[in-house]
Amino acid sequence: MVRQVAVAPDPQPLDPTVGYPKGRARRREILRIASEYFAENGYDAATIFAIAAACGISRAGLLRYFPDKEALLEGVLRYRDEEDRARFAPYASVPGGLGILRAMVDLAEHNEHSPGLISLFVRLSAEASSAEHPAHFYFSERLRRIRSGTERTLESAARAGYLRDGVDPAATAVQLTALMDGLQAQWLLDPALDMAGHMRRAILEILNTRGAAAFDAVETTG
Amino acid sequence: MVRQVAVAPDPQPLDPTVGYPKGRARRREILRIASEYFAENGYDAATIFAIAAACGISRAGLLRYFPDKEALLEGVLRYRDEEDRARFAPYASVPGGLGILRAMVDLAEHNEHSPGLISLFVRLSAEASSAEHPAHFYFSERLRRIRSGTERTLESAARAGYLRDGVDPAATAVQLTALMDGLQAQWLLDPALDMAGHMRRAILEILNTRGAAAFDAVETTG
Repeated sequence: MVRQVAVAPDPQPLDPTVGYPKGRARRREILRIASEYFAENGYDAATIFAIAAACGISRAGLLRYFPDKEALLEGVLRYRDEEDRARFAPYASVPGGLGILRAMVDLAEHNEHSPGLISLFVRLSAEASSAEHPAHFYFSERLRRIRSGTERTLESAARAGYLRDGVDPAATAVQLTALMDGLQAQWLLDPALDMAGHMRRAILEILNTRGAAAFDAVETTG
Repeated sequence: MVRQVAVAPDPQPLDPTVGYPKGRARRREILRIASEYFAENGYDAATIFAIAAACGISRAGLLRYFPDKEALLEGVLRYRDEEDRARFAPYASVPGGLGILRAMVDLAEHNEHSPGLISLFVRLSAEASSAEHPAHFYFSERLRRIRSGTERTLESAARAGYLRDGVDPAATAVQLTALMDGLQAQWLLDPALDMAGHMRRAILEILNTRGAAAFDAVETTG
């Protein structure tokens, strides 16, 4: 059984072992290059040696920051999660869940500028479907977290009277999550695809007239 | 530049070089095992040697059927395409596109029994997003073919008066295709997911009352 990568729900922004500014900058640079390397070659085929070479440092130098490949993967995933959390946080206070729905469109738009990271996540998520993969637990938990967060958002929109009749929060949460993932997979093959436009369209389809007007208001002020 | 795998639009059911029944059965068995091997390890990491070992034959023995790894990949993809075509064919004559929409639900249900093949396609499609990957052209063309086929199906449903007001065939084709891909990726992480139920729900959401009734009639007679 391969060790599973565990990503803490509230990771510390600073790793105490590399607390000096220069070490933190180097660590961040390694994570950026490792992200790109995993995106291009997949996780399974990547080696610490090859990633160290891509970073222009020795294998031993890389291992001072990340003791093994699993730790490096954990660092990459945590880095991405921190960025996403920072993106959603300002929207959480918008009532009726509309801020979070708006943030989903923003995220799709942001992702259109990050092909490497999207490729990494689509590819790693597929690799990690095997229970033996070190990121299996991470991706399973991430899916559950995103789906249940989306469901709570839609329940909040329902209570505010923003949803069309017959829209079921639980089923719609699964479908919006699948749509986002599927659009990313399509976009990797067809970069002309308007991911943000399709997310916006799908969200407007579940809102009633009042919800759509309120959603557009978030859009212009958010 | 890596050689791109080309899959003929109308592949011959029999390969003339292995026309004897025993050779065909062996060839089919190699494709089945190679599918599973690619699904488990990814295409990039797989070697002809390892796949031959999984088949219980020598490397030279495998190369008699498929001259290189690209040819083996081509065989696997063609095998899957033939199966899918056979599944959609009986539905093509149902008027107003409803047969094809019904076949999408059936395909999702069928896929729930083929985790290896789904894993292979989700994983290969992600790997193939790199323009250097030998299956890049195949997956790009496949996406275009599926999207335009779905768009024609929805246009046919619109002409028959089956679609809800405001449903745009082109945008909905992108979204149904993305939903199918995204549900597959989710299902690999969460096998309890009801892919067929979600496809059915998404299709009923774009149909008007008359369309939904006609769709259900296909469902019970199809």
